[in-house]
Amino acid sequence: MTDPEDLAERVREGEVRLHELEDHADHETAAEARRRYVAAETGTDLETIGEYAFDAEDAEPNVENMIGAAQIPMGVVGPVSIAGGAIEGEHFLPLATTEGALLASVNRGCSAIRSAGGADARITDSGMTRAPVFRVDGVVEAKQVVDWVADNEESLREAAESTTSHGELLGVEPYVVGDSVYLRFAYDTKDAMGMNMATIATGEACDVIEAETPAELVALSGNLCSDKKPAAINAVEGRGRTVTADVELDRELVEERFGTTPEAIAEANTRKNLVGSAKAGSLGFNAHAANVVAAAFLATGQDEAQVVEGANAITTIDDRGDSLYASVSIASLEVGTVGGGTKLPTQAEALDVLDLRGGGDPPGSNADALAEIIAVGALAGELSLLAALASRHLSSAHEDLGR
Amino acid sequence: MTDPEDLAERVREGEVRLHELEDHADHETAAEARRRYVAAETGTDLETIGEYAFDAEDAEPNVENMIGAAQIPMGVVGPVSIAGGAIEGEHFLPLATTEGALLASVNRGCSAIRSAGGADARITDSGMTRAPVFRVDGVVEAKQVVDWVADNEESLREAAESTTSHGELLGVEPYVVGDSVYLRFAYDTKDAMGMNMATIATGEACDVIEAETPAELVALSGNLCSDKKPAAINAVEGRGRTVTADVELDRELVEERFGTTPEAIAEANTRKNLVGSAKAGSLGFNAHAANVVAAAFLATGQDEAQVVEGANAITTIDDRGDSLYASVSIASLEVGTVGGGTKLPTQAEALDVLDLRGGGDPPGSNADALAEIIAVGALAGELSLLAALASRHLSSAHEDLGR
Amino acid sequence: MTDPEDLAERVREGEVRLHELEDHADHETAAEARRRYVAAETGTDLETIGEYAFDAEDAEPNVENMIGAAQIPMGVVGPVSIAGGAIEGEHFLPLATTEGALLASVNRGCSAIRSAGGADARITDSGMTRAPVFRVDGVVEAKQVVDWVADNEESLREAAESTTSHGELLGVEPYVVGDSVYLRFAYDTKDAMGMNMATIATGEACDVIEAETPAELVALSGNLCSDKKPAAINAVEGRGRTVTADVELDRELVEERFGTTPEAIAEANTRKNLVGSAKAGSLGFNAHAANVVAAAFLATGQDEAQVVEGANAITTIDDRGDSLYASVSIASLEVGTVGGGTKLPTQAEALDVLDLRGGGDPPGSNADALAEIIAVGALAGELSLLAALASRHLSSAHEDLGR
Amino acid sequence: MTDPEDLAERVREGEVRLHELEDHADHETAAEARRRYVAAETGTDLETIGEYAFDAEDAEPNVENMIGAAQIPMGVVGPVSIAGGAIEGEHFLPLATTEGALLASVNRGCSAIRSAGGADARITDSGMTRAPVFRVDGVVEAKQVVDWVADNEESLREAAESTTSHGELLGVEPYVVGDSVYLRFAYDTKDAMGMNMATIATGEACDVIEAETPAELVALSGNLCSDKKPAAINAVEGRGRTVTADVELDRELVEERFGTTPEAIAEANTRKNLVGSAKAGSLGFNAHAANVVAAAFLATGQDEAQVVEGANAITTIDDRGDSLYASVSIASLEVGTVGGGTKLPTQAEALDVLDLRGGGDPPGSNADALAEIIAVGALAGELSLLAALASRHLSSAHEDLGR
Repeated sequence: MTDPEDLAERVREGEVRLHELEDHADHETAAEARRRYVAAETGTDLETIGEYAFDAEDAEPNVENMIGAAQIPMGVVGPVSIAGGAIEGEHFLPLATTEGALLASVNRGCSAIRSAGGADARITDSGMTRAPVFRVDGVVEAKQVVDWVADNEESLREAAESTTSHGELLGVEPYVVGDSVYLRFAYDTKDAMGMNMATIATGEACDVIEAETPAELVALSGNLCSDKKPAAINAVEGRGRTVTADVELDRELVEERFGTTPEAIAEANTRKNLVGSAKAGSLGFNAHAANVVAAAFLATGQDEAQVVEGANAITTIDDRGDSLYASVSIASLEVGTVGGGTKLPTQAEALDVLDLRGGGDPPGSNADALAEIIAVGALAGELSLLAALASRHLSSAHEDLGR
Repeated sequence: MTDPEDLAERVREGEVRLHELEDHADHETAAEARRRYVAAETGTDLETIGEYAFDAEDAEPNVENMIGAAQIPMGVVGPVSIAGGAIEGEHFLPLATTEGALLASVNRGCSAIRSAGGADARITDSGMTRAPVFRVDGVVEAKQVVDWVADNEESLREAAESTTSHGELLGVEPYVVGDSVYLRFAYDTKDAMGMNMATIATGEACDVIEAETPAELVALSGNLCSDKKPAAINAVEGRGRTVTADVELDRELVEERFGTTPEAIAEANTRKNLVGSAKAGSLGFNAHAANVVAAAFLATGQDEAQVVEGANAITTIDDRGDSLYASVSIASLEVGTVGGGTKLPTQAEALDVLDLRGGGDPPGSNADALAEIIAVGALAGELSLLAALASRHLSSAHEDLGR
Repeated sequence: MTDPEDLAERVREGEVRLHELEDHADHETAAEARRRYVAAETGTDLETIGEYAFDAEDAEPNVENMIGAAQIPMGVVGPVSIAGGAIEGEHFLPLATTEGALLASVNRGCSAIRSAGGADARITDSGMTRAPVFRVDGVVEAKQVVDWVADNEESLREAAESTTSHGELLGVEPYVVGDSVYLRFAYDTKDAMGMNMATIATGEACDVIEAETPAELVALSGNLCSDKKPAAINAVEGRGRTVTADVELDRELVEERFGTTPEAIAEANTRKNLVGSAKAGSLGFNAHAANVVAAAFLATGQDEAQVVEGANAITTIDDRGDSLYASVSIASLEVGTVGGGTKLPTQAEALDVLDLRGGGDPPGSNADALAEIIAVGALAGELSLLAALASRHLSSAHEDLGR
Repeated sequence: MTDPEDLAERVREGEVRLHELEDHADHETAAEARRRYVAAETGTDLETIGEYAFDAEDAEPNVENMIGAAQIPMGVVGPVSIAGGAIEGEHFLPLATTEGALLASVNRGCSAIRSAGGADARITDSGMTRAPVFRVDGVVEAKQVVDWVADNEESLREAAESTTSHGELLGVEPYVVGDSVYLRFAYDTKDAMGMNMATIATGEACDVIEAETPAELVALSGNLCSDKKPAAINAVEGRGRTVTADVELDRELVEERFGTTPEAIAEANTRKNLVGSAKAGSLGFNAHAANVVAAAFLATGQDEAQVVEGANAITTIDDRGDSLYASVSIASLEVGTVGGGTKLPTQAEALDVLDLRGGGDPPGSNADALAEIIAVGALAGELSLLAALASRHLSSAHEDLGR
């Protein structure tokens, strides 16, 4: 009964449904049966997908209808030299990607930052948000609801925090559009990325609102959260961690390492990242911050779809004469060191490399630290790519002179 | 000399640099040496990271400083029933994710779509873009450059296409901001996602522009491309594939499968995806399209950071009385079935499941097909989540009535 | 010496500079001299520009280098039937415009609203903002400044409020980007639109910040205010008054007055104002709210350039079966009944028509009322235009049936 | 019967409706009767509103329910020294505003520009757009419609141009969202701002589309136009004229006139207009371009609500060492010298001052010229305000040094 081929056959016969296989066998066998079934149906060989390095049962909180794993090459960059608010010293940063040259480029940036004495990083704002939408009769009711919420934040806090041992409600921001009321709840979710915690807590608060006001809940998420969408509200107000990393590099260091000048890097940043993004109607004023965010997210078990918000980053370059100042400010970096994909073995090992697996002391400090080091990685990537663009330009300028 | 521990020791001694290990041993040994070195330095165990199921050498185009792989649980949803412009019939869609309940939810949507007779899908626009930025003296020169480009598109095409056997230049769109000129080159890159192809071809065209006009190249990408940034230019004009998937479901089907009504789903979509996103200043008017895009990207070897553009999606719901019409339109879905991570074994197997590995016949049809089926997956996810929100609302409404 | 022709001659001779004429004659004569000079230089006749109906001296706070006035046709719509938070009853709304058919259209909407028993309106948020930008050394200092501000809001309030007898500081929101710190000060400016008050008060607060922290002021406005720019921060968080007006119309009323149905109006709103604006990357989800805002601003002496923010409006339509619900929510409507152009005689008379000239009792109530009635005017305009679009569609549909 | 008081009484008695007065008397008398009626109803005196300097009948194309005029103080700045594509030499620019200090500030900028030898200006793109939205059954039909439009642009051109003696169809850009198809028609409308021309021409083309394809028109404007809304599509792709003005000022000139340095002005521009606007989620990267656009629009009879699009401007400053380069690029400046409010006497006189009243030779050149000179006015305003901010900073820096 636990032979995977038999199970696959039973699926074929319609006796067992594909997503019910775990009801009929252990998780490993179920996955194999599913793999065999799909392979047979599609005339394919799913061998390497089946060569995963974790217990199928352990992945139950992460996936359904499992057939195995996607394997994304992982490397390290660094050491990243960082003086953050929650992390100090030198650390290797694991990155998983399929984009060739990315790690080499980031590594070059890390090396320059290290030679400059390291990067600073700080969390300047923090809070995971969930924004339900309610239906009211019209703006008269809407105004009543908004006023009630302002007057009763304490009872909303009580309700929300009753669902969580760690989370804290930071505040509730109301938005009214016609007969819809949106309430953006923000939480300190400590070392968890916190979407689930925020959703459950907000659900409880919604019950109170529905009981005490005329508002009727339409959806627990009304998109003012805003999760996994490229939204100005996140770029402006932040979501998850709002984090900045910066570094100052001597002119000689810039010239030696990058073969270009602070002026040229500043010009590339202004024309590309600032003016070009402005003309593009962008919320991302950077060169490729999302590359580092995505690769770090994959390596450390973050939610890949939240790369969307992680791209809300502004890169600035000041040519300070004798030095170059570079910064990356990511408005909405949503990370955690507990929950989600962080427990999976390759991801947990990657967090170990950073010494950030699990909850921090004090709570929240590990996720803060992860945000800070990712920001420094992004900074390294920005510096390296801008320098490459600037030096290519210089070299072509040199060729011009040689003509 | 090829003993990994010896190599790790030499790194420790400073004799070999961490990124040079591949110069001293085969790729497998180099990766192991790097892993040992990092593990020792950080006091960690990187065993599962080392249990990857591909040849390290094969991953050379994808990563540097490799230590192994991140393993992301992969499952399948479906069968997805699709009548697309480039793909027909029923297909399992592999998705890799760490977000629990995602596949179950998408699967529910797929099942409803299948019962409704399947979804339609079409590519309505296509083109991979690269937009270099040039410096000119001022707007007088800028206007000259813009005019020159308009008059010489043929010679730009010749230069650009000289670098590629497959790619075709579709057009060049100029944008002027003060003394910066941006030229957005759009290419048909067939089955490749095409960033590299577009970059190389554009580089060649830039040489012509610099030779024939006063414009001087500042950066080969001036952010009007716009790659891996949440930019309106992509949401409006598209990048990669612009694709829509839609389906019409009978009222009974909606009620039976989702336990809610077309009216309730339409209301949730309007208040959340349309009005909520509007108020959030968003470019994404959907519930969680990025979830499906990200999971499909991971499974099939796409560039994870391009999930950013994949989130530029609009979900619409029409309550048509006897039926519900649902659609997802993704403006900028950047996919390929050749190049990038598509050759890695787990990813190639996932493409096999879709019968879309490698180049299509005609060229471009495989990538078109991949875009279409991802769009249907996103549609399934939208339907399922909206229905869940709507039915929760209904149930709480029912409770209200019971009071 | 006070002969205008002599003065014009002296300007011609270079003895008096054009902007200094008021130093040599009364304001009327100076304006006439300037008019004569410009007319002679340009070979034109500026007679009607010279036929203005106010004392030139009274316009001194509003314009320099005055030659006369632009005359914009003004009409009235209404009565507007409103139940607002600050204004009740029936009022004529003066509108000045050069766009034919605008008043007729708004008037039609007003008439329908009146037949429906009037519109509701509420201010749901309020505050005039000014956001200086400071230079710091880097994010470490930025974080110190942000923390200092959080700890010292009371002393900032004291400084800010020392400059004004009416204004109250509502709060200070910090934003960090690299080595720039932006502090968005929000004020209750009562019946004044409040930009000047907010600027002066913020300037005083900036002195405290510069004295007590390492931050150095770069510009008193750092564009996070954001004044006269189409910025998401205003559309999301509001500026000036955030106001919603709404109305419910019986189906028969809709059909009789507009010759169309709630369904057709709802469809036009969804496809045009919601989905169309979404695809356009817009912050304005309405048909033509700016038309009414601009015309009311001109009539009542508001700052015409702030029409930009007044266009941040979302129009919603619910087809409620037996009725149609319509709303307009303007996020950032910046109005005042004192200061600015409100004292000029035609504008003051227009405010008289609304009984809103000068300061309200309690302070702020007149500006609140003005915002509410403009919102109702915008609502009337939206209803009328959407109905026109919908009925045109219906009529063409009818023609189709007749074929 | 043509006594205004009698007429007012008849309105009071309900015998004549307020908007029908022109049916019972000449326009002057009708306006007076309406004024008397409103004055009596509201207990006000509308004397100055009644002192307008144009024939009421001539304003019939511009307003309904006329009671008189709003009078906005008008002054001149300049001479503006310009080398444009359509206008050369020195010109006074009339501006109407109620914002004190605006003209003085712009004038200061004009003076500096003149001393620098004048500003350049060029139209880099042009086209008035109208984008109807059609309903289709789904994406399969949508794709058919898009293909049909691509294949039949010539017959659309024929239909569209049949309605106008001047306008030319430049192209049609399709956008698909689910079962909605948007077609953005762009026209060369010569010296007219062109909204009416574009609307009528597009209406005719829509008839062809409805006859030849399954698409059904829902609204003649589907908001991808996008008129009077703050939309990225306009900021990116332009609407009306896309125009840049720029100037290079010697360092000494900057220091002498503005009491500050190129470095300080560049810094203010970067931190405020570029980075600040980026953080604000803005489409306007400028200091106050809308001020000049609004004031020039009022003076010259443009559509005030289109100030919204006129705020889509990017200001750039390059510190070029010995000089400062400054530019303003307005993406969507919608102007005309025929039609709209341009015929009203004060507005026509203001156009005379610029020698731009009526149609140009060649057609379109007058509107081009108007766009160019407004852009130079905006440039003057940007320079002056940035310099003021920068010098204030310098002075406070000097005080710091004095401590």
